[in-house]
Amino acid sequence: MSILIKDSVIVTQDAERRILKGDVYIEDDIIVEIGKVNTEADFVIKNRIVIPGLINMHTHLPMTLLRGYGDDLPLEEWLTTRIWPVEAKLEEHHISIGTKLALIEMISTGTTCCSDMYFFEDVIAREAEKFGLRCYAGFSIIDFDTPEMKKEMLLPECDNFIRRWKGNNMVVPVVAPHSTYTCSPETLEGAKEIANRHDVPIHIHCSETRTEIYDVMNRYSVRPLEQIKKYELLGEKTMLAHCGWITKEEVREIASSGACVVHNPVSNMKLATGGYTPLPELFDAGAVVTLGTDGAASNNKLDMFETMKFAALIHKHHRWDASIVNAQQTLDMATINAARFLGINAGSIEEGKKADVVCLDMASPNLLPRHNIISHIVYAASGFNVSDVVIDGRMIMKEREILNVDVEKIYEEVERLKEELVE
Amino acid sequence: MSILIKDSVIVTQDAERRILKGDVYIEDDIIVEIGKVNTEADFVIKNRIVIPGLINMHTHLPMTLLRGYGDDLPLEEWLTTRIWPVEAKLEEHHISIGTKLALIEMISTGTTCCSDMYFFEDVIAREAEKFGLRCYAGFSIIDFDTPEMKKEMLLPECDNFIRRWKGNNMVVPVVAPHSTYTCSPETLEGAKEIANRHDVPIHIHCSETRTEIYDVMNRYSVRPLEQIKKYELLGEKTMLAHCGWITKEEVREIASSGACVVHNPVSNMKLATGGYTPLPELFDAGAVVTLGTDGAASNNKLDMFETMKFAALIHKHHRWDASIVNAQQTLDMATINAARFLGINAGSIEEGKKADVVCLDMASPNLLPRHNIISHIVYAASGFNVSDVVIDGRMIMKEREILNVDVEKIYEEVERLKEELVE
Repeated sequence: MSILIKDSVIVTQDAERRILKGDVYIEDDIIVEIGKVNTEADFVIKNRIVIPGLINMHTHLPMTLLRGYGDDLPLEEWLTTRIWPVEAKLEEHHISIGTKLALIEMISTGTTCCSDMYFFEDVIAREAEKFGLRCYAGFSIIDFDTPEMKKEMLLPECDNFIRRWKGNNMVVPVVAPHSTYTCSPETLEGAKEIANRHDVPIHIHCSETRTEIYDVMNRYSVRPLEQIKKYELLGEKTMLAHCGWITKEEVREIASSGACVVHNPVSNMKLATGGYTPLPELFDAGAVVTLGTDGAASNNKLDMFETMKFAALIHKHHRWDASIVNAQQTLDMATINAARFLGINAGSIEEGKKADVVCLDMASPNLLPRHNIISHIVYAASGFNVSDVVIDGRMIMKEREILNVDVEKIYEEVERLKEELVE
Repeated sequence: MSILIKDSVIVTQDAERRILKGDVYIEDDIIVEIGKVNTEADFVIKNRIVIPGLINMHTHLPMTLLRGYGDDLPLEEWLTTRIWPVEAKLEEHHISIGTKLALIEMISTGTTCCSDMYFFEDVIAREAEKFGLRCYAGFSIIDFDTPEMKKEMLLPECDNFIRRWKGNNMVVPVVAPHSTYTCSPETLEGAKEIANRHDVPIHIHCSETRTEIYDVMNRYSVRPLEQIKKYELLGEKTMLAHCGWITKEEVREIASSGACVVHNPVSNMKLATGGYTPLPELFDAGAVVTLGTDGAASNNKLDMFETMKFAALIHKHHRWDASIVNAQQTLDMATINAARFLGINAGSIEEGKKADVVCLDMASPNLLPRHNIISHIVYAASGFNVSDVVIDGRMIMKEREILNVDVEKIYEEVERLKEELVE
């Protein structure tokens, strides 16, 4: 397959030449040429803003089913009276349809890769593969029975899951011990053993809430990050979701470990976790910082453009300094930082890179005048400005139509399942 | 003209029956019938979420021209090196085109009424009238020469402006002394005299930044709100933009005066003004609280859906309490609170009300499943979900097309003027 994007403004994410005007030519899964390209192509697109596909580094895809089901509640009440009772009813067909809804929303708002963590991860991985979205599929391990299986099955089934998916082109299996407050030391050790043996990434919640810190301190006399380190889960393949309540020492630990912090500003603010993932300190320490939406139940959407804006603004506001977490740093978190960490040859628009490419329609009032495109991407754009999405060189969405997907049918199923789940 | 919106979910903003399913029938400028309506109409729309038009209570429309021109800068540097040098070059034709761009953006994201404050307000008012958007047009009064006229002309010209526009159906003239740090006591007195004589609203910046508080304290030994009160500008027709740094005593003063607070969370966060407009205390005191985007130079868009989400989340986060500033309160700020304050018979979808009505396309992944429509409006919707806009009973936008406006031509002019302004 070949794709030609003509007469466009290209946000390269190459520090040598940030913005180019011209054409982008894609053949198979690779960006082959950038500049003035005169060639035929299977798909031709014109007059776009071209950016690298956005990477959502922390989400729970099927939780779209719970969007708007329980807002404005304290975290404990939200979990115990709303989220958990519904999650207990989840079966494969719910997961499948919730994931489909999430994939439609993510693709249509410019996300080309995500790092997920949930139950029934096989179902999620299969849907992502079918839709053609790059997915780091985190098999959740936790110290209680899941809607899918008994807790004693989680470690062996995680091992099977990794074997099944390892080597897949679009799905990378991930070991996802839920957190240090929901996983015993033995469970953490089991998770680490599987991750090490298969050399796959680890995805874990870390220091999201104050309660979590107190719980872990009370039980193990260490903070969550120390616990993660103690059980050798902290390394250059580890994704740490949240880190809203970490210390300066922990900032240094994370930076030197090569682990990646996933900042989820919208979810943290909505759930009032109160923490401020210390981005300026993490940047200064040279840590890898990326962005996530978290699940749609606590966001309540999966639009990485919105997440970028929240990420930039909350820190300016908190520190009384408009210059911190600037537009370029924010776009980096959503693209190149995540791609480098994951080891995907993407995250920028350069010749020889994987073609994970998102186009925005230039003719939109919120993107005019074009003083500064990078500012517009972070502060003015919306996921709805996305017109076309290419993942791994495949045309996934063209002029806002997701190809080969009957979205209306999926919407109808979502509404039907809603009744079943919450009655 | 008649408009029939069929088979829809109606967010009434009537506390007795929040959500209805059915049809809305509009004749001339009035919502005539809600329920099951069987009649012909000039326009028929189907399957929508119907909400009252959003009211943006603080903006500077032509500043769309400066969107993205100077971000990530400290406030002082932003004003002196970016905003003011360009503003000094502004002429009527810039104002006209910047306002047109703002009106396109606002209408297409569901705003049906705005309260503006800028120079060349006649030009702004004329454009709003032409587009058919309700506009509270604030004639700015300040102690220096504006791009439009010498400072000594401002008070007499404000008086002329009010005379010209008073009685207009869509444009309400407003006296807008800029602030207590840019207007001397004499200027404030002059502004008050005009507002009183014509019985028109007042719009003024109040306690946006710490610098402002210190400046006013140093010069006049009172805080900005006290200065406003001292010169009798505080009353039930006064819009106080920001109030980010007000005291508990000031909260009570505002509530008892009947003045309205306009909270601009996105602009405040982006400029890092650091203040937290104390919404919970203002609500408790019974003050009128509304929302604004501020100008596009500091937002960087004019999407009231985004502003609602920021408004709700920043306070939850700041107070470590997910239950405060809930979805209903937030939607109220953007609709009924503002309409009541302004004395417009709108802000809700009820029979006999003015037809300022916004429709959202239901078939969008971010608005599914429909557990809670009010939650979706505040936490999940985007201005891009807006499909149709009716103002004063007129069909202004249909299926995302703004009727009788050549938007492409305006976009081209915006890009051309950009070169002229910033070269």
